[in-house]
Amino acid sequence: MALAAEVLGDRWMLLILREAFFGVSRYDDMRADLDASRSILTERLNRLVSLGLLERRSYREAGSRMREAYVLTEAGLDAAPILLALTAWGEKHVLGGAAPVALVDRKTGKSLRLALVDRNGREARLTDAALVLRK
Amino acid sequence: MALAAEVLGDRWMLLILREAFFGVSRYDDMRADLDASRSILTERLNRLVSLGLLERRSYREAGSRMREAYVLTEAGLDAAPILLALTAWGEKHVLGGAAPVALVDRKTGKSLRLALVDRNGREARLTDAALVLRK
Repeated sequence: MALAAEVLGDRWMLLILREAFFGVSRYDDMRADLDASRSILTERLNRLVSLGLLERRSYREAGSRMREAYVLTEAGLDAAPILLALTAWGEKHVLGGAAPVALVDRKTGKSLRLALVDRNGREARLTDAALVLRK
Repeated sequence: MALAAEVLGDRWMLLILREAFFGVSRYDDMRADLDASRSILTERLNRLVSLGLLERRSYREAGSRMREAYVLTEAGLDAAPILLALTAWGEKHVLGGAAPVALVDRKTGKSLRLALVDRNGREARLTDAALVLRK
C-alpha cells in the first residue's frame, strides 16, 4: 500500500497517468494540457519512470531537436482499473453523475464499466463479495 | 481527484478502509489489528467520517461503558472497486502474485475479480478499452 499511497497521494501524478491513458505521450503536450510548470512536470515524470509506471522515449521531428515522450509500461497499463475505479467513484460521489470522461470499447464505441466477475466471466454483485485472508 | 489523493495518499486511511471491508468495525479491534496509536487511529477515523466514507456508531456490551464502532457508508462501500483494483495491482507488481487477501462470493466461496464489462455484462479486454472525453 505504500507505493499506492505515494502515487495516488499526489494529484499531479494521478493527472499525468490519466494523460498517458488518454494517449498523450509528449512532454510538451502534457505540459499544455495540465498547465503544469516545467519543474513540477519533470519531477513527477521522473518519479513515475523510477517507479516503473512510465518509460521515457526520445523522438525527433524533421528540423527539430530531440524531444522527450513518456509511455505507459506494462505496470502502468495495469493501473488502469485503479484510475477507472477512482473515476467511477468520483462520478457518483463527487460530481453527482456528470463525469467528463467515459470508458468505451475502441472498436465498437460502446461504453464499458468495471464489474466483479467470477471465473466464468459472469457478473457478481458487489454486495455478494467478501474479502478473505488467503490460507 | 483531490479527495482521492487525500484518502489514498495516507497509508493509515487505506488500512482502516480495508479493515472496514473485512468487517472490522470496533475501535478496539482496529487498534489491535493495525497496531496504531490512539492518536493516529482517532484522527484518521475522524477524517474518514468527515469525508463521508465511514459512519460512527456507539454500542455497549453488558457491564461495559459505551464504545465506538465505525461502519462503511454507501460512499465508503462504493470505494470497494478502488481498493480491489489497488490490491490486484499490488498482487501482480509488488508482491509478485502472492496477495494475502482474496475476493470471494460470500455465498459460493468462489473467487471473484475485477473486470471490464459492456452493457450486457460481457467481459471486455483492458486493451480494447479507451478513455474518451464525453461530449
